[in-house]
This record gives sequence, structure tokens and C-alpha cells, in this order.
Amino acid sequence: MEWVEVSTENCTVQRTLDVVGEKWSLLVLRDAMNGVRRFDDFRRHIGLSDAVLSDRLRKLVGAGVLDTVPYQESGRRTRREYRLTDKGWDLWPVILALKDWGDRYTSDPEGSPLDVYHADCGERVQTVVTCAVGHGPLRAKEARTRPGPSAQPLK
Amino acid sequence: MEWVEVSTENCTVQRTLDVVGEKWSLLVLRDAMNGVRRFDDFRRHIGLSDAVLSDRLRKLVGAGVLDTVPYQESGRRTRREYRLTDKGWDLWPVILALKDWGDRYTSDPEGSPLDVYHADCGERVQTVVTCAVGHGPLRAKEARTRPGPSAQPLK
Repeated sequence: MEWVEVSTENCTVQRTLDVVGEKWSLLVLRDAMNGVRRFDDFRRHIGLSDAVLSDRLRKLVGAGVLDTVPYQESGRRTRREYRLTDKGWDLWPVILALKDWGDRYTSDPEGSPLDVYHADCGERVQTVVTCAVGHGPLRAKEARTRPGPSAQPLK
Repeated sequence: MEWVEVSTENCTVQRTLDVVGEKWSLLVLRDAMNGVRRFDDFRRHIGLSDAVLSDRLRKLVGAGVLDTVPYQESGRRTRREYRLTDKGWDLWPVILALKDWGDRYTSDPEGSPLDVYHADCGERVQTVVTCAVGHGPLRAKEARTRPGPSAQPLK
């Protein structure tokens, strides 16, 4: 069965995009991974409306990607801030892969506005493709595909 | 300067999302990486309208991610099919990272509908994060960030 004959109904790329496949959601994740936690900071930094931000945060919390934690500044009422869960941090390679491509093809001549580096050695962090036993980095032409265990024919 | 004080105007994640940060565009890329090349195949397989597919294909061709190649079936007029450029294939880690997360958190109990494996050894292909000298796989807590060479203050 070729991929074009396999139903996409349970495609795991598609299901991931159902959770985070929207530009503002991915930008909220980018910011959360870079330490942004508070509603007003997300709104000001990303530059989106209250309504859209509320909606995306609600969706990401609902999906278990972000969690809310109460905080209180002195003399003010308790508010909530947003922190990545482990499930949310597992999207780190997605954001880094978008950044890798962007650094290569879209950056200003002088480079990226953000460096991500390995704390131990100071070298730039990047995504690579390997196989489960560690062969790689792999290029696409070194990989093959086949229908997986949940493959169903396209209706 | 904290990330929240850095302008996102030239953020390379954001600029990448300007090209591919839309669900249908990413699904077109998924299909292209799995061998789909023809308009009618994309439309039928992904399940989207002619108008949306035309728009996304035009955008991806315009960005140099897809290229068009003429083909002709016997007795029919010449049509165009869509093939990934090298620039397009460089988005492979993005799609694989989305799939990795989806396989872990969203798949049917029996697994994914598509296996991607290393041609040489047959083991599953995955995205990992390493540093430029090869330390890794790294977790997010092993990385740090700092403003990059093109960082500008948020206005």
C-alpha cells in the first residue's frame, strides 16, 4: 500500500497539528521555551490580541502542553502563569527544527536573533535525524517508509 | 537582554512559519516527503479544496520549497507535478519532529499509520537534538539561550 492510499485520519503528524499546527500556538511555545510565562508578556512580545492569545493558551492547557501555576505580586490579586509540562517540552525538537531551517534560509545577514547553545560546551544546538540505534545524522534519501501498524486504506 | 525584550520581527522561527506555518502547508509537505507529487493526489489524500490546495502549492513553489516539473500521460495534455527542492527537503526534520511527538502522544493504540526507517539497518528514524560538535541527544535543560547577532530590542 502506497502512502497515497493510506488514510490520513489517524496520521500522527496531522494529530499533532490539530494541537499545535497554528502559527500563534507555535509562537506561544517558542516563547514559553525561552522563559516567557505571563499573559501580558506573551501578548506584548508576540504581538497578538487578548482574544487570540486566550484561545491558544486555553487550547494548549487543555492539551496538557502548558500548565497553569498561580502567582501573586505584592498588593495585587493572584494571577496564573503558564509553564510547559514535560509533554510540552517534548515539542522542543519541533521548535528547534523550525529555527534551524529559518536560521539557514530566512535570517538577517548577521545571523539569528537568538542563539541556543549546549550549556556544557557552548556549541550551537541543532536538530538532527538519526535512527533508533544511533546511525546518522541521516539525510532523507537514507530513509524509507512503509505503512505502519495502524495504517488503514483511504476511503 | 532577556528574550521577552528581544524583537521578534526577525525571529527565524516566525519567518519559517510565515512560509510553512499553516496546517495545510505542513500536510502538503508531509505528503510530498512521502512521494505524493500530483495535484489530484494531494487533494484526494489530504482532503482539502482545490482553492486551498492551489493557494498552498503556489506559496510553497514561490518560497522555493517545491518545484514544478511537467509530465504528460499518453493522450492527455501536459500537466505539472510538484517535487521538493533541496530547500524543501531541509524541512524533513520539522515533519519528523511533529511525527515523533504525535507517535508518542496521539497515535492509535497499535501505533502509527506510517513507519519511517533507516534503509541500511531497518531501525526507526527519529529527530534528536545535539550540539554542533555532536554531544547529545540533549534535553532542553542542557541548553541555554542568549541574544544572537541580529537581536534588536522590542519596540
